[in-house]
Amino acid sequence: MNLSFFSINGIPMVKPGDDLVNLINDGLIGMNEAFQNEDVLVIAQKIISKAENRYVDLTEVVPGERAKRIALDVDKDPRKVQVILDESNEVVRARSGVLIVEHRLGFVQANAGIDQSNITNDDGEDEDLCLLLPMDADASAKRIRYIINQRFGVNVGVIINDSMGRAWRMGTLGLAIGVSGFTALESYIGERDIFGKELAVTQVAAADEIAAGASLVMGQTTEKTPVVIVRGYHPLEPKQESMRGIGPLIRPKEMDLFR
Amino acid sequence: MNLSFFSINGIPMVKPGDDLVNLINDGLIGMNEAFQNEDVLVIAQKIISKAENRYVDLTEVVPGERAKRIALDVDKDPRKVQVILDESNEVVRARSGVLIVEHRLGFVQANAGIDQSNITNDDGEDEDLCLLLPMDADASAKRIRYIINQRFGVNVGVIINDSMGRAWRMGTLGLAIGVSGFTALESYIGERDIFGKELAVTQVAAADEIAAGASLVMGQTTEKTPVVIVRGYHPLEPKQESMRGIGPLIRPKEMDLFR
Repeated sequence: MNLSFFSINGIPMVKPGDDLVNLINDGLIGMNEAFQNEDVLVIAQKIISKAENRYVDLTEVVPGERAKRIALDVDKDPRKVQVILDESNEVVRARSGVLIVEHRLGFVQANAGIDQSNITNDDGEDEDLCLLLPMDADASAKRIRYIINQRFGVNVGVIINDSMGRAWRMGTLGLAIGVSGFTALESYIGERDIFGKELAVTQVAAADEIAAGASLVMGQTTEKTPVVIVRGYHPLEPKQESMRGIGPLIRPKEMDLFR
Repeated sequence: MNLSFFSINGIPMVKPGDDLVNLINDGLIGMNEAFQNEDVLVIAQKIISKAENRYVDLTEVVPGERAKRIALDVDKDPRKVQVILDESNEVVRARSGVLIVEHRLGFVQANAGIDQSNITNDDGEDEDLCLLLPMDADASAKRIRYIINQRFGVNVGVIINDSMGRAWRMGTLGLAIGVSGFTALESYIGERDIFGKELAVTQVAAADEIAAGASLVMGQTTEKTPVVIVRGYHPLEPKQESMRGIGPLIRPKEMDLFR
């Protein structure tokens, strides 16, 4: 297999209401490129959230008693803790400097994926501005895929990624939080190895593997390359409805030995 | 950034004592390719272990009392549990069907990374054959990098990867277990975002991101492509001795909230 990962240059700072597909296409045109059938677009969560106006101004947040109590434990702004709780199903770990929750979309993630880097508003007063994850990252991926198909007549896979910490390893890793037209979890259950023995590894987190590689290509700081195209893969929407989207990558709580 | 990931075709089944660099180079020649400066080689743990003869024959293993007790709990072969314990610093979780340990190299991993797929021995009786992780995966990576430099005069980065499960997500992900000539953990501590604000994400697991992407290119079952070359990256050995190898990616136990 031969995959190429390339970042799209020239994508401007994204503002609420922006048409991301147009911005991405303009970037491609500037590189003498175009969407192709079977391209996989990996898009940073941050620009999806910006386009969807998922900003929260902390000056408008009044923290409740629970948020205030947790804020003391973890040494964070109680208003930010309130926003995190509002975005979460439950708190998984709260320690000084660390607040790990189950996001309402199901991911276990620090601070519910809420972000304060590389964001601003028009008047420049950005200290109190937070950016939440997309309301429904699968739906965002699906919409972008649909628009590309309608406008350009090509079928692509779309993955929305975000950087996450891990339980046992240092550093963040880019992982998928939304997916459309791509099989997030590849199953080899019942398949056999080279010698005909049943495979031990039966499920591969394909969307996470491609999201991680693309994250390296995006960079993390001031690269301004929030979209990566992966070419050479054959993305496939799963036939079974239950295997579509990001759901199959989320470990059910009752199967999770670490919370 | 523009990275290409390509798998090397024609690498034969690896046997103990095989010269991996020659096998990889033969594969490259067959593709009209050659090692280039700044190539990153991602090599599946399995062929390193095979070349290093890290086989254990379970018929020669006598399980101790502790292994027998754990084997009952997790419903595994007590001889295999003994081998897992021998390769581990401590048991992290033991439940029916699941034995997660801290490997002696520091990684938290199911079954200490011990493998029974895609392995065999010459007489075909392979039911009792296990393959352990390399004795020292960083040293294996370093040796391969050195040999390539000596024989071909090029500087490459080398990553050894393995598929691992995760606490909160389904499916395995290819992650780095050994590295040389590559900065496994990129630090942005003290750096600033586009707007001059201090970055929230301060450390990126770069070796894991590249290992994950390469794992997708390798495939998992019968592809027989255990080596992927990543081209377009600028791998760099960290200046600081303490930042070399895989160590910086291992979360110290006292910083781990999930065991």
